[in-house]
Parts: sequence; C-alpha cells; structure tokens
Amino acid sequence: MEKTDAYYMKTALKLAEKGKGWTSPNPMVGAVIVKDGEISGQGWHEKAGGPHAEVNAIADAAGRTHGATMYITLEPCNHHGQTPPCTEAILAAKISRVVSAMADPNPDVAGGGSAYLASKGVEVQTGVCENEARRLNEFFIKFVNTGRPFVILKSAATLDGKIAAKTGDSRWVTGPEAREHVHLLRHWVDAILVGVNTVKSDDPSLTARLENRSTRDPVRVILDTQLSIPEDAQMLTRPSSAQTVIAAGGQIDPEKARRLENKGARVLRLPAENSGVNLLPLTEELGKMGITSLLVEGGSRVSASFLSAGLVDKICFFYAPKLLGGDGIPVCSGPGPEMMDSAIPVADISIKRFGNDILVEGYIF
Amino acid sequence: MEKTDAYYMKTALKLAEKGKGWTSPNPMVGAVIVKDGEISGQGWHEKAGGPHAEVNAIADAAGRTHGATMYITLEPCNHHGQTPPCTEAILAAKISRVVSAMADPNPDVAGGGSAYLASKGVEVQTGVCENEARRLNEFFIKFVNTGRPFVILKSAATLDGKIAAKTGDSRWVTGPEAREHVHLLRHWVDAILVGVNTVKSDDPSLTARLENRSTRDPVRVILDTQLSIPEDAQMLTRPSSAQTVIAAGGQIDPEKARRLENKGARVLRLPAENSGVNLLPLTEELGKMGITSLLVEGGSRVSASFLSAGLVDKICFFYAPKLLGGDGIPVCSGPGPEMMDSAIPVADISIKRFGNDILVEGYIF
Repeated sequence: MEKTDAYYMKTALKLAEKGKGWTSPNPMVGAVIVKDGEISGQGWHEKAGGPHAEVNAIADAAGRTHGATMYITLEPCNHHGQTPPCTEAILAAKISRVVSAMADPNPDVAGGGSAYLASKGVEVQTGVCENEARRLNEFFIKFVNTGRPFVILKSAATLDGKIAAKTGDSRWVTGPEAREHVHLLRHWVDAILVGVNTVKSDDPSLTARLENRSTRDPVRVILDTQLSIPEDAQMLTRPSSAQTVIAAGGQIDPEKARRLENKGARVLRLPAENSGVNLLPLTEELGKMGITSLLVEGGSRVSASFLSAGLVDKICFFYAPKLLGGDGIPVCSGPGPEMMDSAIPVADISIKRFGNDILVEGYIF
Repeated sequence: MEKTDAYYMKTALKLAEKGKGWTSPNPMVGAVIVKDGEISGQGWHEKAGGPHAEVNAIADAAGRTHGATMYITLEPCNHHGQTPPCTEAILAAKISRVVSAMADPNPDVAGGGSAYLASKGVEVQTGVCENEARRLNEFFIKFVNTGRPFVILKSAATLDGKIAAKTGDSRWVTGPEAREHVHLLRHWVDAILVGVNTVKSDDPSLTARLENRSTRDPVRVILDTQLSIPEDAQMLTRPSSAQTVIAAGGQIDPEKARRLENKGARVLRLPAENSGVNLLPLTEELGKMGITSLLVEGGSRVSASFLSAGLVDKICFFYAPKLLGGDGIPVCSGPGPEMMDSAIPVADISIKRFGNDILVEGYIF
C-alpha cells in the first residue's frame, strides 16, 4: 500500500525532534526525501549554526533526489542566514515536489520559500500535520511572533496542592522519574527562572543533569527585586556553561551589583512596583538575549505573578501521590480572584505518568 | 477454546456490580452457573433484603445445575439470615463445584460456607480474581472488620489546589460530567458528611440526583460541634428519603437540638476537643447505624481533620483545568507537618477523565 503524505511527514517530525534542546534560537526541522516510493534521504537540523534539515537530507540521499518529493516540517528558508537558502539546494537537487507541514511562522518571510519554489516549477503543498508541527516548535513560533520567550510554568505539588511544608521543606515532593523529566525540561529550554526566595531556601544549581546524555545548561534567571541574593549561592559559584541573570529593580546597591557582575552574573535593572519586578519588560529583555523559552520553576509568589501578568503559555504540573493534609506552601500565593469563574482556563490538557507521579500539561491561550 | 475460571469469575463480578448502591449493608455478589461448558444461569444480589446471588442464579438456570460449576464473587453464606443459607440451595441444586473469588471477610464466619460444602463432597476453590472482588466490596470488607464505615474523601479543586475562591465561592470548580459522577458516588455510599461551614456557605441538599436512573439518597451527616446550623438549611427542610444526622459536641443548646430533632434530624452528642468533634467515635456511631460507607465532601478543615485522624480509606480528587492563580481556599487547611516527608502516602493511584476534568483516585492504607 502506498504510504500517505501524513506518514512521511510524521517520520520527518520524529527526525526534527532529535534536535530538541540543541537548535535554539532556530526551530527543530526534519526532512524526508521520497523517490520512487522509497525514502532516499533523511535529515534534521542537529544544532544551531549547523546545516539545515533539507541540506542534511539531500546529502543523505547521495544523488537520489531527481524528481523526488521532499517532506519537511517547516517551509524551506529562502534567505541567506548562517547558511545559504535551502530553496536553492532543493532546486539544485531537482526535487519536483515539496510538502511542508507549516509555513514559516515569521510573518516577514512566511510563504516566501514556497512561492519561490513554485515560481521555479516545483509542486508545493503546505499544511500536512500542521498541528503537530506547530506544537513541536511552540517555543520558536512564540518567539518569532512576539520577540519574547515561550513561558512554561512548572510546579511539583502534593495532591492537596502544596509545593512545600509550611517550613519551606520540599525535599522531595516528586520521585526520581519526575525529577529526571524536569532535568530534560531544563535541557529543552533556553532559560530557567526562580524567585530569590527559592535561591535562599533551596540554593539550587538549576543545571540540566541527565545520566548518559549530554545536555545544554540553560541560562538561570533569578527574580530578585531588592538584589538580596546571597553572594555564595550555587548559581553564582558553581561552574556552568550558561549565564546567571539577576532580574532586579531600579533601586539596588550598585556595589553589590558590581560584585555579582564580577562573579560572571548579569544584573538586569528593570522597572519594579510594590509587587516586584515588572515581568513583561523582563521577558522582553530575555527575548533580546535570544532566549526563546523560559521555564518558571517557582516558588508560589513567582508562579502567581507570571500567571497574573498573563505571561504563561503552558503549564507542566507534577502531582505526587501524597497529601500534606494541612497548611503548607501552595502552588500559587498572592492576590487571588473573588469568584471561581475568574479562574484562568487551561486548554488541551494531557496527562502522563512518571513513576508514581502524575504530570498534567496544558496551555493558556 | 474452553473458557477459564477467571473468565467466568469476571462475568460474575460484572453481575455483582449491578447491585452497586442498593445492597448495603450487604455486599455486592454475582454468581454464574456453568454446565457442560455453557452458562446455564446467572444472578446477582439486587438489593438488601432480596434473595442472594446464588439463589437468583439457580432460579435462572431453571434446573440446569446438576453437576455444574458455580462461580461466585464471595464465599456462599452458611447461616440463616434474612434468607436461608445459600450452601443448602447449592447442595439442593446438585452443583458439584463452587469457585469463590474470596472467603467471607467477616472473621466470625470466614471459610464456613466453603468447609461445609467440601464436607458434603462439593469441590471448592477460593481466590479466583480475589483482588477485583476485594476492591468491589471495599465498603463491606472495611465495615465487617471494624464496625466503622469505609471513608472516601472527595474534593474538587483547580490545578493549583484550590476548592474555592477566597470569598468561599466555588460554583463551579468542575464541569457537568464530574458533578454527575459525584451524584453517582452519593448514590453508592450510605452517608455523606460535610462541615457546617459548607452548609452555611453553599446550603447543599446533598441528594443523589441522576437523570434516567433511580437513586437512593444517602444519609446526610453534618459536622457541627457548636450546633450552629441554620434551622432553614436545605438538608433540614428539603424532602429526602434519608435522614439528616448532626454530629455535635457535648455542650450544645438543648432547645435547638430538640427543634432540629422535631424537624426529623438526629442529633449525635459526641466528645469534642478544641479542634472539633472527635471523629473516631463519630464513625463508630455511624457504624452502629449500619452505615458502611461515608463520603466526606469537605470543606478544607473537615478534610484535614479526617486525614489527621487517620480515618480516610480512599480519596477521589477532581481537578478542573483551571488555575485560581492566587490565594483561595485550599483542599486541606489546619495544622500541617513541618517536613514534606511526613506527608501521607496515597497508593494505587488511578486516573480517569470526566469531560475536561481529571479524577485521581487512590488509597490510604
């Protein structure tokens, strides 16, 4: 039986995903070349700065591209970036049909690659497995459209919604499988953010640590309006390939800021109100630094602030099979609405199990 | 292919479940008679006071029982209760083999029915699908072993663990499918308990209301140490086939108690401490009233009290796909532990979806 366009596109999507965590600020892209009903070449964008998926697939096909169809998870680029335009490589390979999952999400260039190929006589089609492709590159799509990172709010709570005991003790809410998944999440994103209270109580290093797997450390962002971070915090002293950014308000001790900068941290001075640093300008600053995705790891004040600022795109909430059974630290704290119908809806809920823990993921639109 | 003992036992378990909500204080029981490789009769215990499953199955077999095997989800009774012993009916039907899922959980009679049948030359076997049978009759098993009801703690919260906004507004956390399942739960249990604050804020009727289905209203229990219930509360005035029980402390207004009793309520005077009515004596009293199962529906103080008293057997926690995003009323409130590792473990977690809501069920051993 002849395989469908969707079949090959799903293969290309799986290839694309191999780049997860390595391609930022580029998207993940996978490409499959089909000639005479067989896959003659496949490739993916392996890491930022490296060749695009199309070029890798054409190289893999080793000449078996003439009259072939290329399935590609994103419209081929038509501009000179760090590499020459993929449209030219496709034309040079004499590929006769190009099926894309989605148009380039960058409004400045969307449709350009497809239109150019069509003008040269290539049959082009767009929109096969588009939903899957959009979800795969949700970070990139958000970033190119807004200049701000895609924000994931993560929490790990008991079934009665507590992230820590009333003393702040939170070791451990979830089990090893869930904690390993968090390290994977940290590898996937460009930056992680915590409040300075989390630094004071847990002193996390927030590196991505996974056995048998190389990882990329995310930029660590600390929300610290008063610049009260302890100068011996692990995030300032522990070696990491990624930078530590301290998001402070305008009125801070310049001497301490200079000492922190001497340790390699970057101190951002941002507008602040009583409730803390304004978060929209912070995400804009992070966007300017090329950060396409931000994992907010709490605590409860920080989570509530990101939610009330309307900046959260996705939630990853772990629930451990236990009950604190009384007062403790909730997932969110701070001003809440008067009425239940003012709650923020979460869409497209999905549920996964990690060991004995439950992960609920969903989107805020 | 010949069908296995487990196959027929699963059929019997499904039959047993048809009695769910109607058999208390008896267990649910199902029976299947297999003669010459075919089911010749089946039956279940349809409601308390009615014939046992064995008798119904034998009647259904209409004589095709000689030399047959009976699959039954619980060891047949060997004593005269409201009906004659099923062991005699089995012997009279000349059934030659009896396979039970589990022995009678009542320690006073366990094994008696099987031993009597064996002494009469019937081949007996016990323990086929025992885990499923135990779970099916978890209410009954708890009750006959302790004299106290099986306690289910139910809650309905946002993903950030809030059952209501800070004003107490909770309409609605979950959607219609989840709320319908709660009505089914109310039909399954013998009694429901809420705190008097829930009566004051929500004035619920706590009846089991299901379309296209007859239901049995549960006994309504109100935890009300000070006897402060409004005398026009729905639970006191709305017609119901089931009683309203008010669990009060020792020091209450006798006039008000008499007025409430004149309205048909039963007022229990129980030992109380600062934290409220002692819950163990309350559950013992409910057990003496023949209540084998109790659904605790909150609020957050009541939930925490039942958990800290160690009286909860099972949790049914609904989570709605929304975030309150700040302060509100948590699932549990009141004294909590200092350290996360003092949290109460929840075992055998299972997850179901009801519309857009998530139900997490688990056991506290």
